[in-house]
Amino acid sequence: MSKTEKIKIAIVGYGNLGRGAELAIAANSDMVLTNIFTRRDPKTVVPSTQGVRVLGAECLDKESQSGFEKPDVLLVCGGSAKDLPWQSPKYARKYNIVDSFDNHAKIYEHFIKVDEAARAGSKAAVIAAGWDPGLFSLIRAVSETVLPQGQTLTFWGKGISQGHSDALRRINGVLDARQYTVPKAGVLEAFRRGKHIDGFLSENRHERICFVVTDKGVDKGKIKEEIIHMPDYFEGYKTEVNFVSLEELRKNHSKMPHGGTVIRTGYTGAAKRATLEFSLKLESNPEFTAEVMVAYARAVYRMAKSGETGCRTVFDIPPNAFCPLCCEEMINSYL
Amino acid sequence: MSKTEKIKIAIVGYGNLGRGAELAIAANSDMVLTNIFTRRDPKTVVPSTQGVRVLGAECLDKESQSGFEKPDVLLVCGGSAKDLPWQSPKYARKYNIVDSFDNHAKIYEHFIKVDEAARAGSKAAVIAAGWDPGLFSLIRAVSETVLPQGQTLTFWGKGISQGHSDALRRINGVLDARQYTVPKAGVLEAFRRGKHIDGFLSENRHERICFVVTDKGVDKGKIKEEIIHMPDYFEGYKTEVNFVSLEELRKNHSKMPHGGTVIRTGYTGAAKRATLEFSLKLESNPEFTAEVMVAYARAVYRMAKSGETGCRTVFDIPPNAFCPLCCEEMINSYL
Repeated sequence: MSKTEKIKIAIVGYGNLGRGAELAIAANSDMVLTNIFTRRDPKTVVPSTQGVRVLGAECLDKESQSGFEKPDVLLVCGGSAKDLPWQSPKYARKYNIVDSFDNHAKIYEHFIKVDEAARAGSKAAVIAAGWDPGLFSLIRAVSETVLPQGQTLTFWGKGISQGHSDALRRINGVLDARQYTVPKAGVLEAFRRGKHIDGFLSENRHERICFVVTDKGVDKGKIKEEIIHMPDYFEGYKTEVNFVSLEELRKNHSKMPHGGTVIRTGYTGAAKRATLEFSLKLESNPEFTAEVMVAYARAVYRMAKSGETGCRTVFDIPPNAFCPLCCEEMINSYL
Repeated sequence: MSKTEKIKIAIVGYGNLGRGAELAIAANSDMVLTNIFTRRDPKTVVPSTQGVRVLGAECLDKESQSGFEKPDVLLVCGGSAKDLPWQSPKYARKYNIVDSFDNHAKIYEHFIKVDEAARAGSKAAVIAAGWDPGLFSLIRAVSETVLPQGQTLTFWGKGISQGHSDALRRINGVLDARQYTVPKAGVLEAFRRGKHIDGFLSENRHERICFVVTDKGVDKGKIKEEIIHMPDYFEGYKTEVNFVSLEELRKNHSKMPHGGTVIRTGYTGAAKRATLEFSLKLESNPEFTAEVMVAYARAVYRMAKSGETGCRTVFDIPPNAFCPLCCEEMINSYL
């Protein structure tokens, strides 16, 4: 495949996710990274891919003046809390996009906004393409459909929760902090063996382990109390608080591992037990999320080429749309 | 949903798989079983579903004379070795069908035959819809696409292999037998930890445990030798042979459990390890296979309704096609 035939992908947002996307594109021989768009000063950004031009994010709004080649797909690599709610609808009017929006409670609202924008601009979009939402969603849908009688639970971790780490850092007297979400081992095992678990509350199956660096002279007991009673984040959870030095935090807790397990247990026809289980263990949460986005970028490219417009999710896309292999190769390699 | 709006499903073949399909249909409120077709004397077949008419399989060839209502989808519940290679192409000319053809080496050939037949008859078909091929195939395709750098292995068992049990029963002097396929525990663990395994040969990662009932007076030593050196089935494998009484075989080995694990280990962008793992534990292999067939029957029904014809596999079908929920429900329940 010549370079001109490759899928031209651009990235907007060059944080952990954007850098992961850059590496993921390089691992797919049918794709090429054409541009990185950033809100920082483009001169300060050094991409790891040779020959890739870095431009200010504002250039995406004035394509013709900026002189970059329009990408086939734009990966929107912003954060779900503050960036994607406005970025994805905005960019979906002018570009075919993929994002990994992960605020579960607001996904349908986000879907509607991106769908309207993409239809208005005759573009194609996929939202919420990561591992949860994303691959885990796929597994929940498949396993519940093939096993209508049963219960599904999702366990997250062990891994770093960015949202909970941010919450710790907002406490007065806290210099830096990381929070691990850890599934309660006994609960997962019991559920796997068929015990019915009250799965509605995440705190029934997860605990939280915090590593906190404080200013000198603060009342650690008071900070600990503030953490374990923080509503929406820690209240109700079994929470462990460890005070550590900045050096220890940087040395032992600077990575971004994550993962988790989706389990469905239930019964086939004549009350025969069946258990489906899908798990991920990831050394780098943002890098793996980016790999999933890049796979769905292939699907968006194909959608756009065949004239489809509007927003899709992982539920609308068959494997043959995101896989690089052709039908016969897929049957012979995977079926 | 009134009964007349339900998806009308018929079954041809009333062995373990067909009986599983009957139970699976009953568990899906948008479906109704209309007829069972059997090659046995229909009078000897007692379905577990009230009001279902049992007819001879030959009636499928003379629909107008037989006075049954044409089903929306026909589940072809024959065996992959001798039945499906002729049944599926034949029935695909007249009916929308689903089968669970599982002879991996011949799937593409089967696909082409069913595709030609279905197109000729303007019908829709899905083949190889079970758990392997089927759900495991889906996982292999997804995991290899999102993690291009890595290795995938499939482990089968612990479970009863019908083909290997049949091979044992064909030996002179053997009255009855069952064979369990068991993954070598150490290999699975090592692979999970990231060790590269020579995965091409199944015997490098599975062992075989046989329970054999012999005629009185036979040379058990000779039979054991014959088993462990049987080409294509046991040669090269670590094989354990246990001679048991017929009573013991019936008491302890009459069930049909199976399952297995698909694992992909590899690396995301910057050489960060990632592991994806999907496993199934099934008390009843045929019942679970039937559940998957029934889910894909919904997809075939929708394909046919929208005028699509030809054969598909799990790779061509998005979750929204086999799931009973609508788009908004899927997003809110699973995404």
